[in-house]
Amino acid sequence: MGVSTTYAAFPGRIVMVGFGSIGQGVLPLILRHLAVPAERITIIEPRNDPTGEAHALGVKLLSLALTPDNYVATLDGLLGPGDFLVNVSFDVSSLALIEFCQQRGVLYVDTCIEPWPGGHTDPGVSPSERSNYAFREAALALRRAHPKGPTAIVNHGANPGLVSHFTKRALLDIAQATGVNAQPESREEWARLAMQLGVKVIHVAERDTQLAAERKLPGEFVNTWSVEAFVGEGCQPAELGWGSHERHFPADGARHGYGCDAAIYLNRPGAATRVRSWTPLEGPYHGFLITHGESISIADFLTVREGDQVRYRPTVHYAYHPCDAAVLSLHELAGKNWQLQPRWRIPREDLIGGRDELGVLLMGHGRGAYWYGSQLSIEETRRLVPYNNATSLQVTISIVAAMAWAIRHPEQGIREPDELDFRAILAMCEPYLGKLAGVYTDWTPLQNRNWPFPEDLDLDDPWQFKNFRVT
Amino acid sequence: MGVSTTYAAFPGRIVMVGFGSIGQGVLPLILRHLAVPAERITIIEPRNDPTGEAHALGVKLLSLALTPDNYVATLDGLLGPGDFLVNVSFDVSSLALIEFCQQRGVLYVDTCIEPWPGGHTDPGVSPSERSNYAFREAALALRRAHPKGPTAIVNHGANPGLVSHFTKRALLDIAQATGVNAQPESREEWARLAMQLGVKVIHVAERDTQLAAERKLPGEFVNTWSVEAFVGEGCQPAELGWGSHERHFPADGARHGYGCDAAIYLNRPGAATRVRSWTPLEGPYHGFLITHGESISIADFLTVREGDQVRYRPTVHYAYHPCDAAVLSLHELAGKNWQLQPRWRIPREDLIGGRDELGVLLMGHGRGAYWYGSQLSIEETRRLVPYNNATSLQVTISIVAAMAWAIRHPEQGIREPDELDFRAILAMCEPYLGKLAGVYTDWTPLQNRNWPFPEDLDLDDPWQFKNFRVT
Ligand SMILES: NC(=O)c1ccc[n+]([C@@H]2O[C@H](COP(=O)([O-])OP(=O)(O)OC[C@H]3O[C@@H](n4cnc5c(N)ncnc54)[C@H](O)[C@@H]3O)[C@@H](O)[C@H]2O)c1
Ligand SMILES: NC(=O)c1ccc[n+]([C@@H]2O[C@H](COP(=O)([O-])OP(=O)(O)OC[C@H]3O[C@@H](n4cnc5c(N)ncnc54)[C@H](O)[C@@H]3O)[C@@H](O)[C@H]2O)c1
Repeated sequence: MGVSTTYAAFPGRIVMVGFGSIGQGVLPLILRHLAVPAERITIIEPRNDPTGEAHALGVKLLSLALTPDNYVATLDGLLGPGDFLVNVSFDVSSLALIEFCQQRGVLYVDTCIEPWPGGHTDPGVSPSERSNYAFREAALALRRAHPKGPTAIVNHGANPGLVSHFTKRALLDIAQATGVNAQPESREEWARLAMQLGVKVIHVAERDTQLAAERKLPGEFVNTWSVEAFVGEGCQPAELGWGSHERHFPADGARHGYGCDAAIYLNRPGAATRVRSWTPLEGPYHGFLITHGESISIADFLTVREGDQVRYRPTVHYAYHPCDAAVLSLHELAGKNWQLQPRWRIPREDLIGGRDELGVLLMGHGRGAYWYGSQLSIEETRRLVPYNNATSLQVTISIVAAMAWAIRHPEQGIREPDELDFRAILAMCEPYLGKLAGVYTDWTPLQNRNWPFPEDLDLDDPWQFKNFRVT
Repeated sequence: MGVSTTYAAFPGRIVMVGFGSIGQGVLPLILRHLAVPAERITIIEPRNDPTGEAHALGVKLLSLALTPDNYVATLDGLLGPGDFLVNVSFDVSSLALIEFCQQRGVLYVDTCIEPWPGGHTDPGVSPSERSNYAFREAALALRRAHPKGPTAIVNHGANPGLVSHFTKRALLDIAQATGVNAQPESREEWARLAMQLGVKVIHVAERDTQLAAERKLPGEFVNTWSVEAFVGEGCQPAELGWGSHERHFPADGARHGYGCDAAIYLNRPGAATRVRSWTPLEGPYHGFLITHGESISIADFLTVREGDQVRYRPTVHYAYHPCDAAVLSLHELAGKNWQLQPRWRIPREDLIGGRDELGVLLMGHGRGAYWYGSQLSIEETRRLVPYNNATSLQVTISIVAAMAWAIRHPEQGIREPDELDFRAILAMCEPYLGKLAGVYTDWTPLQNRNWPFPEDLDLDDPWQFKNFRVT
């Protein structure tokens, strides 16, 4: 497996919806690894081809925004059975596109279940209804309606996406390190392994240190990937898979009252919710508890049930330390009560340093805490593939791996990352992930606490959510 | 009054304790405005003369740290009746120096009541005992012990300091704008004016946008003034003058149970406490509720009592948006549970732009809210005086004005900024403050609230502290 390997030779047509930071980054990898000539690819993007990349690579671009009214007619003219729809937009309903693909026999991949415009903050619906939990339940309902549909892989970027595979890799590593013999295959076996190891909490622990030459200006939101999608999900309720060991239900928390019940939400924006976490290169840090699909799907996947009872489930959530300019952007955004800045910017060619350190931190087992993930610098990214920064590359290679898997397994219906062959996917991604590091640590969220003020902590169990939360 | 006016001709000797960002900045202004030859000035500073400024200006520097054991002997060798002690250090007890000066007939000024090392976070004492409220009560007790002592002006920088004078200027402006005839002279008259105008809340509303060429690195704290003093006060309890209109006592709040009772504290670091505020150039923002002397002294000064009863008092506190690099530094510091970064930096010559916008925001009166203060850019600072950035200059000119006032009024005992002639002080400072702006706004902390989540607000009175606080 290397940067010149064909991962799967795709004979059909590809439509890519959205040509922003991820669309631009994924295109050269699709061309490189899926043996598709440029003329079989069409991009749908209302903002055109700002960097001239599509033109340079010989890919058609339809300057158009998909809407509830036009998407069926538009896509019908471009896609038929056996073709592929790659959804890397925002403001387009993933569920609408998935249903379209299920009906038409079209393969599908996305990296986030996005709603139509305004769906993240619609004041006309309850916080539960605008949660990723609700979006996922709707996807699961679609799956029940199309049990043998064409393969549609949802939420398969870096996170959600790769991190589900990192979690499995990490579980096996911890098993080995603690002398547990494990060869899990089924969902139940993975869940039982996590329970046996005593994993209580899983963070998606990410620290992005990428730095652009130009500073964030007042009134500007700067991020290393979609500003609009980040602000959208940041204004959704904070969500987390809710572990069976938790004994302090948050005062601002709520259950959904429908669906799998693996996750809860807080009645506040994730972008206003901080948690303590840890990565190998950063050490302890405060991250934002932004809602993400994997917080729910991993928690659900690793749930052990006995009859109707939940016997075991880890707490799972995101602890995101975006790049410094994005931290400042969030601070400004919160100061303006979530009214999005008038200008935004996603640096790529003008990045002057830094890396994206993205992994999973599994806690509470016999070795304390274990981080497994990718440490990818901007310099290495540039050596590997054009049109990417470190953040996008962790996403885009994961999309291409999912596409290759779907091409090879075209009739698997709607799938979450947790339901794919993690070894096959990781093997395709590895050449692009920089250093893959697995690091144990004795860090806990109780380290250096109760100073210089007494705090409300649960000293009997470091791994309680209340100990992680920043109040 | 101008940049070549002698504010007061001082015949004595001057000892300056501390030669950091403020000490370096104030020295050229002392030489310029107080008609003191360099050879009559001595600096005490353990870190020597890093930029060579003292040497260049011909001022002696004693390379020494004052300690509880050596300060009396050291200062006795350098100061006698009629001389001046300028305290711009940290880690030296202001109270110890004030008492020394009261006993020896030495004039005194400082910009913050600092404790001996560790005093901000001493786990052996209660949060109340390490508050600025306690430090101020100790200074007031010293005053009672030395009713006719030499003039000692405490807390006279920009804030605390200048902002007390801005508050009076703003009260008169609002009186004029709302048709109230007012010529307050005494403390009681000022307090009654504030009550009559209906001022419920006063913020020290500051937004610093200064920017260094070099980025903040991981493990580095960058600020436009003392990193150590900022972190020290940031780890003290959040403190605020507690207004008579407040009807929701904070769940984490506490009264001190001794002293003037004008202020309360929160059982948490100010650096972890955010509030909503507003400045003319920034608009709405989140600032840090860092404890400061003025929050207590202004609230106390503007209290109207009838017999034993408090009839009126405004809520007063700081809402500090430090420069972007400091916001990032605070975020990192909090992430490491207040363990100070190993490196720090106070940019000055390498600043490439920005300004310090520092004023008072008076709210709740007939015109809504009114901000009055200084908007000073780094470019204008450089035209005015060397060895300063915009932040230090707002402090250093205020120190020199206080010194001039003390020289002209040498037997006034211990004084707070609120107890000086604000017109005389402002006249001396004005040439150095950039644009002095007075701006009305219809902003309230309820603007754009309850979105995208319902919030716990008091909609009947926008000016309740609970509406300002970020939770
Ligand atoms: N799972 C992950 O790791 C991960 C990481 C990054 C981004 N994402 C997701 O990938 C998607 C794209 O992210 P990005 O960084 O490229 O965002 P981006 O903002 O850079 O680009 C999104 C593009 O979608 C286009 N678009 C908007 N409305 C459209 C419409 N109606 N029809 C067609 N196109 C439309 C926009 O014009 C924009 O160019 C988002 O859903 C984001 O949440 C996932
Ligand atoms: N009121 C205001 O507006 C305002 C604004 C800025 C600073 N300040 C205060 O001014 C003071 C100085 O601030 P700065 O920015 O110059 O700080 P700084 O950290 O730049 O400098 C302080 C200096 O004090 C010296 N020092 C430390 N211990 C000492 C000791 N034992 N004896 C003698 N010197 C010692 C340090 O070596 C350092 O050089 C602090 O108390 C700060 O809180 C007030």
